[in-house]
Amino acid sequence: MTEGLQHKLKGIVLVSGGMDSLVTAAVAKQECEEIFFLHVNYGQLTEVKELYSFNKLVEHFQPKRTMISSIEYLKQIGDSSLLDTSIKMDSDSSTINNKEIPNTYVPFRNAHFLAIATSWAEALKADRIYIGIVEVDGSGYPDCRQEFIDSFNLVIEKGTKNDQPIVVVAPLVNLTKKEIVLLGDKLNVPFELSWSCYRNNEMACGTCPSCQIRLKAFSEAGLTDPILYKI
Amino acid sequence: MTEGLQHKLKGIVLVSGGMDSLVTAAVAKQECEEIFFLHVNYGQLTEVKELYSFNKLVEHFQPKRTMISSIEYLKQIGDSSLLDTSIKMDSDSSTINNKEIPNTYVPFRNAHFLAIATSWAEALKADRIYIGIVEVDGSGYPDCRQEFIDSFNLVIEKGTKNDQPIVVVAPLVNLTKKEIVLLGDKLNVPFELSWSCYRNNEMACGTCPSCQIRLKAFSEAGLTDPILYKI
Repeated sequence: MTEGLQHKLKGIVLVSGGMDSLVTAAVAKQECEEIFFLHVNYGQLTEVKELYSFNKLVEHFQPKRTMISSIEYLKQIGDSSLLDTSIKMDSDSSTINNKEIPNTYVPFRNAHFLAIATSWAEALKADRIYIGIVEVDGSGYPDCRQEFIDSFNLVIEKGTKNDQPIVVVAPLVNLTKKEIVLLGDKLNVPFELSWSCYRNNEMACGTCPSCQIRLKAFSEAGLTDPILYKI
Repeated sequence: MTEGLQHKLKGIVLVSGGMDSLVTAAVAKQECEEIFFLHVNYGQLTEVKELYSFNKLVEHFQPKRTMISSIEYLKQIGDSSLLDTSIKMDSDSSTINNKEIPNTYVPFRNAHFLAIATSWAEALKADRIYIGIVEVDGSGYPDCRQEFIDSFNLVIEKGTKNDQPIVVVAPLVNLTKKEIVLLGDKLNVPFELSWSCYRNNEMACGTCPSCQIRLKAFSEAGLTDPILYKI
């Protein structure tokens, strides 16, 4: 991509406030002339923590505009331990390391995020949507794979007015978690502002699938995670 | 499809309360053993009218369960005369009959509807999602075309757990509006309970794109539309 084209880009970034969205935002900031941050409150148990991180990342990256969308229906539908405290959260490493999808999976969640981003992109005439999904080293969620993104891009092509092409990019999808930490370190991202834990405590629990993956990544990268852990 | 298979089907029907969703619901009722009705309030100006019709159709069709999802973000995003009264609504027939997309288009709206239906289908283990889009005789919205549905089905295949396949079907997509009226008449649907007008008045306006299309359809079918019009 030429320098000239890069400097015209408008990018919407899906920012949960977690480590992956933080590094993705840093990549978007490098590639786009204007960035826009979108956060979605879908009734996740950790929304207060996520929103705090989101606001800190807004201060840090200074996007041109932000949007916080609150949706109720994923909580109404349930079927995930991220949304329903009556479901015991999978946290043992066997669930993470085998092929089984942990019960933290929220049915089709990323399709909702991308649909909101796409509608906003149509209105803003943005070119790109950045999403920090991770396939190789992730939790095995079906909506965190490159082939999901590829098919979503086809839906965008078919289902929008298409005055300008809108493309979803997932800059981390093929990176290992170790590589994501190293990329973030290279881009000087403020890891201390991010929140990855699936539990809603003052400190990260260190035992849920998301904490385990994050801790392993920093360990493999030979770096220290600046956030506090309970364990 | 065999009779045996038909009788095991669970179908979610997207029910706005308009004529097309009414006829679609009647088709779903014939094909499925269990039907579930989903209505989405996205800040449309006619939501009160739509919800009234939705509730009447629930009484009529007796679905096993219903869900009403309220979403705020399409209104936040705007960019449509269906959501924003400061945008003058396209209503002249030139807009309908040429290739231009009327400003009643809500960016990527049906992707949101289908994403909600898909998440619900995963939780309910439903097989089908029925949507009453119309391509040949519709308003030219990009998200009302068979190729949009085809690509969305690919997204569902890639982005869900896929314990059971979920397929979006659009039984009216290739019918003319006249044929839809005739099909509804054959299935004895209660046309008097439906609301198609884009305006929020006591009676349908008869002049917005949606009313014009509906009136023309009844006229071509040689039937009388039982709802009241202001004109």
